[in-house]
Amino acid sequence: MVRIAVDAMGGDHGPSQMVAGAVEAVAAKPQIQVLLVGQEDVIGAELAKHTYDKEKIAVVNATEVIATEEPPVNAIRKKKDSSIVVGMGLVKKKEADAFVSAGSSGAILVGGQVIVGRIKGVERPPLAPLIPTEKGVSLLIDCGANVDARSSHLVQFAKMGSIYMEHVMGIKRPRVAIVNIGAEEEKGNALVKETFPLLKACTDINFIGSIEAREIPHGGADVIVCEAFVGNVILKLYEGVGATLIGCVKKGMMTSLRSKIGALLVKPALKATLKSFDASRYGGAPLLGLNGLVVKTHGNSKANEVKNSIIQCVAFKEQQINEKIRDSLEAAKKEE
Amino acid sequence: MVRIAVDAMGGDHGPSQMVAGAVEAVAAKPQIQVLLVGQEDVIGAELAKHTYDKEKIAVVNATEVIATEEPPVNAIRKKKDSSIVVGMGLVKKKEADAFVSAGSSGAILVGGQVIVGRIKGVERPPLAPLIPTEKGVSLLIDCGANVDARSSHLVQFAKMGSIYMEHVMGIKRPRVAIVNIGAEEEKGNALVKETFPLLKACTDINFIGSIEAREIPHGGADVIVCEAFVGNVILKLYEGVGATLIGCVKKGMMTSLRSKIGALLVKPALKATLKSFDASRYGGAPLLGLNGLVVKTHGNSKANEVKNSIIQCVAFKEQQINEKIRDSLEAAKKEE
Repeated sequence: MVRIAVDAMGGDHGPSQMVAGAVEAVAAKPQIQVLLVGQEDVIGAELAKHTYDKEKIAVVNATEVIATEEPPVNAIRKKKDSSIVVGMGLVKKKEADAFVSAGSSGAILVGGQVIVGRIKGVERPPLAPLIPTEKGVSLLIDCGANVDARSSHLVQFAKMGSIYMEHVMGIKRPRVAIVNIGAEEEKGNALVKETFPLLKACTDINFIGSIEAREIPHGGADVIVCEAFVGNVILKLYEGVGATLIGCVKKGMMTSLRSKIGALLVKPALKATLKSFDASRYGGAPLLGLNGLVVKTHGNSKANEVKNSIIQCVAFKEQQINEKIRDSLEAAKKEE
Repeated sequence: MVRIAVDAMGGDHGPSQMVAGAVEAVAAKPQIQVLLVGQEDVIGAELAKHTYDKEKIAVVNATEVIATEEPPVNAIRKKKDSSIVVGMGLVKKKEADAFVSAGSSGAILVGGQVIVGRIKGVERPPLAPLIPTEKGVSLLIDCGANVDARSSHLVQFAKMGSIYMEHVMGIKRPRVAIVNIGAEEEKGNALVKETFPLLKACTDINFIGSIEAREIPHGGADVIVCEAFVGNVILKLYEGVGATLIGCVKKGMMTSLRSKIGALLVKPALKATLKSFDASRYGGAPLLGLNGLVVKTHGNSKANEVKNSIIQCVAFKEQQINEKIRDSLEAAKKEE
């Protein structure tokens, strides 16, 4: 069994999509058991709308809710009975293997470190979303809140990301690259120049060198290593350029009668292709390096994305990702 | 008269597009005089294909060519008779007001500093391309080679960028924002946190605060301030995501007979809309803060983009941008 605590209160769509996603997840995978964390009566009312195996879903009451705009450190400290604090507490106490939330990123990042805690030896837990590419998906590591990283952090990100892509996403010898402003080894800022030779010296990852941002959407690497400020810019610009261009295409199609007729004919094929350029079907962003697993799903997740985020926790547990991370860090320490 | 030296040898398409662009530029604006810099015989052969006012175009011989892959510092030092070194020398000697090149970015950045030289008080000359947005264009400053910038550099970038957007692009009180990972003032890495209050204290710019990368394509600010590593990532990811998505749309339209017919109907309208999401019609990227103007156009520039890059030098000279930059720096110095 894989026991997954799900934050029923987080996300733009509130409990309805979180509960629906949980119901879909337990129906899809027999080994999943979900603990829905949040206000009992609200969750109960949502559950009543579905038919599901009662043995697979339990409710854990948590009366408070952390809002997106709340300062995270304060929220985690003060709201002891919030769905995030209670859900992460279940992971801490080993009553759950993973925690999935669509709530405040800041609170999830802080809670992951403070409540769940880091694996011994992990300097910083990176948030690593999957981003869509022409060839599938790549892991962008780190997009968390810990900016101004050091080279030793980036080396750990590369190793953890590589383990995740190989064993959860099933990519053999994932290509690891560092985000840079040119392909040559001598290019880059101080951090990249310091990190590059360290990554090159790692025998347990398939380091392919620098990647320019232009090559990321073409699928130029499987694990894209960068510090969180750059990662955040990449992630958000991806969304922004995508949304703007799709908006332009739609607007362009509505400019004349001719193009409107064309749009009707093109629509189904276009929808299918653009769907392939959507990472949400792979699940949410794992916060790696913790004593347990925390997954952040998009704030605007619908039931299907919530389901995928829950399902991805199964491979994480069954493939013993944290044990592999621990082994990798110990091996690195011995080499020193 | 505005005298503009044009590197006839740079760019992926070689002399043909550079020369054609120069011919179009002098035909479009009577006050433009072009000095085509490069191998005399090659330029002569290209010019022979066009009809143009012989008083408006002269050829300045330069026998060497700097290739894109050459290490820039070395190339500038060794190839004294290259089109870039000779062209920048014309600006240095005040025989030209500006230099336009589609050649090696690295060599242009190095040459700008070493040959043309900085305006007194300018700490670093930023490379500032225009990027397309839903609402027109924004200036992304800095995308140059000088990474690991300091906060004082970013403040100068903001001022120079603001002057450029107001007086060359005609945007009144351009909105200046700093790239950040959240909208709140306390967010950011060390550099952004240090720069934010300095920008806030500037009375001569319209500072609107932080901008998240997601808002850039929506036209959230007119002048987007960042250090060069982040700027480079933004610029290249813009290109990469755009190319990938347009590729997906095209592929999607070719998947069935129905969608192929639709594509034929949609094509002209779509082409017109996507053209509006293309910054090249505004010209190239100015390298600001130099004793003269250096403009870097895309390596793959066609005649039309070369023409626009030449024409943008006219407003730069007529609006006395460098005098305005000088005044702004002196005012800032007095305030200290």
